[in-house]
Amino acid sequence: MHLSPLVTSMPVNPLRALFPYAARPGMLNLASGHPSRDAYDAEGLEAAAARAACEAAGWSYGPAAGDPELVAALTRLTVPIADGQRLLVTSGAQQAVDLALRALVPPGSRVLLPEPVYPAILALAAAAGIEVAGYEVPADDDRLEGLATALRAGDVRAIYTLPTFSNPTGECWSLAQRLRVLALCAEAGVPVVEDDPYRMIRFAEPPPSLAELAPQVAGSCVIYAGSLSKFVAPGLRLGWAIAPEPLAKAMQELRQAADLQPNSLAQRVAVHYLESGRVDSHVNRVRDLYSARKARLASVLAEAGFRVPDTEGGMFLFPRLPEGQTASALFDRAVAENVLIAPGPAFALPGRGAGLSDRVRLCFAGLSETLIGEAAERLVGALAPTGAQV
Amino acid sequence: MHLSPLVTSMPVNPLRALFPYAARPGMLNLASGHPSRDAYDAEGLEAAAARAACEAAGWSYGPAAGDPELVAALTRLTVPIADGQRLLVTSGAQQAVDLALRALVPPGSRVLLPEPVYPAILALAAAAGIEVAGYEVPADDDRLEGLATALRAGDVRAIYTLPTFSNPTGECWSLAQRLRVLALCAEAGVPVVEDDPYRMIRFAEPPPSLAELAPQVAGSCVIYAGSLSKFVAPGLRLGWAIAPEPLAKAMQELRQAADLQPNSLAQRVAVHYLESGRVDSHVNRVRDLYSARKARLASVLAEAGFRVPDTEGGMFLFPRLPEGQTASALFDRAVAENVLIAPGPAFALPGRGAGLSDRVRLCFAGLSETLIGEAAERLVGALAPTGAQV
Repeated sequence: MHLSPLVTSMPVNPLRALFPYAARPGMLNLASGHPSRDAYDAEGLEAAAARAACEAAGWSYGPAAGDPELVAALTRLTVPIADGQRLLVTSGAQQAVDLALRALVPPGSRVLLPEPVYPAILALAAAAGIEVAGYEVPADDDRLEGLATALRAGDVRAIYTLPTFSNPTGECWSLAQRLRVLALCAEAGVPVVEDDPYRMIRFAEPPPSLAELAPQVAGSCVIYAGSLSKFVAPGLRLGWAIAPEPLAKAMQELRQAADLQPNSLAQRVAVHYLESGRVDSHVNRVRDLYSARKARLASVLAEAGFRVPDTEGGMFLFPRLPEGQTASALFDRAVAENVLIAPGPAFALPGRGAGLSDRVRLCFAGLSETLIGEAAERLVGALAPTGAQV
Repeated sequence: MHLSPLVTSMPVNPLRALFPYAARPGMLNLASGHPSRDAYDAEGLEAAAARAACEAAGWSYGPAAGDPELVAALTRLTVPIADGQRLLVTSGAQQAVDLALRALVPPGSRVLLPEPVYPAILALAAAAGIEVAGYEVPADDDRLEGLATALRAGDVRAIYTLPTFSNPTGECWSLAQRLRVLALCAEAGVPVVEDDPYRMIRFAEPPPSLAELAPQVAGSCVIYAGSLSKFVAPGLRLGWAIAPEPLAKAMQELRQAADLQPNSLAQRVAVHYLESGRVDSHVNRVRDLYSARKARLASVLAEAGFRVPDTEGGMFLFPRLPEGQTASALFDRAVAENVLIAPGPAFALPGRGAGLSDRVRLCFAGLSETLIGEAAERLVGALAPTGAQV
């Protein structure tokens, strides 16, 4: 038996190597990007599940594009949908991005990825035979020549973006950055895939999504990916894509070929939950929880000499380590102190060697404020004694 | 915006053209392969959902290979798992087949498909850039030269089989056919993907699965795909794959890239349902229901001159029409009589023109015995008056 070279070429997701550590008793996990269980609306979800379980629709086959009532509920919830575009329910934003890139980028052609990047995007590109190249979007708008050049090098068919509370950086592009990136992509004729799972987890109002801004930028084309995972529940495995009709149809065909349709039961639970009137107060509670956790984590780290960029939402900090510290050394010492972190190089593009070795990704969503304070103290205690700041 | 040639090359699933007709009031649907809603164990499923909804695991991220308790429950339920093999939970058997073929067959290489074929397999092959060629497995074992030749023509990397109560034919390979096909594939070094979603819907005991027989055939390699859709509920979107470890790992990587993991909530519902002690009596009830429906449909058709092969399980009959009738003409006349059928050519391989035009696929699972009798009478009434048997 031979395996396809497409699967043997898939990069190992370095975050997966962390799973065995996460299961150790007493380990405080800052590495995994998981919402904390006390941030679910257990009562509301249980009630929604009870309603869904009584309906035949939850147990039956349904449309590939999604349950019509969920499509309607998500249409009310998400960014404005332009004329000629359509919303498809997907199995999380991951499937929305996978379908969009497979529909847009033939094997051997290229997608541009932000650097640092969420590593699961590298895996889906490799699985589809899609070439990758990196780009950066500096805060200073005048320095976007790098992106302009990247858009024209090779057969670029799409650009993947996570402009709002990025994974891993937590950064949020300014309005000016958004408009400039859209304009550059429109000039190059490259469609923009906007991965936007963290928008609802905001501590301050972010700029409009690229999808919402696209009508202001002539020639731009944005495919939007949303998710219920971060503000309702990841176990529902529900997200959505918004795409121009010919692409939406292609994505739906790919989806049917891959797994026929979204999960019927989970969709009915989501319909009832989204219609329960509980979402706004629940999301406000989650924002307050995570905002306090982020502040606690950031303040302990900043005091110890980490340089912590301001983050106004999402689930991650991506601080620079104090001078003289490296992510791999800190990882080992932190594990010994029972705290788990994601080293920066896990988010480097292939071939970048020890890139990002002065960074770590820390998820502030998964632990209570008290435990996150404890985790931060342990992490500071794990800094190498040779560190200049220690 | 350009679409990838892989998606523009995907064949339109001809069954999808039937959906608008299925929604017409009063239409009796023999075309769609859907279990009937009165064949769900509504009470048992509702109780399982209530238990699942109280657990954090159903709302949380989980392992890509599946919830460990569901893996254990499916391992008890399914065919024996040989040493060195592993069970992965998938989003239906469709995803199991998609992952297996993508892991085994590089773009440009070939998979062999039975003829007639379930058309969703054509779509997934096209989406992955996989070439297809047909094969037949005649009841007479001595006439398998065609398969032997097909296995050696071109770069064949896998063979897809649905040997037990096939969709669309309802046929079940004999033990001798199974062993001979396994031996031929082993000789050619071609792994066998066995799609087996209908095994539990049996009116008589079928021969062992190819997966179970493989250890008797030196050099054979079988990847097994099972499903809860036909005997528990399709809306759960849960199936499983059993594959040798290196392939199982590759399929799991592909699955993570595509959509991260199986649906957590649906998996917890399935765990509680499979452990409820209700499965055996429920499955027996479904077998009795469907067997009676099949008998009713087959007898009305046989009386009207259809040649109806005996079918001992599954959900489909694939009869030959009476002399002089064609599937397309019968389809039109049947729709006018408010009965929907799937014309045989929908199951032909590409390039076969009007192949199978003397066949129709009829699902006996979706309507009550009374309604299926009514549908059969309408279908007979829709035969063209020129038909020799009318």
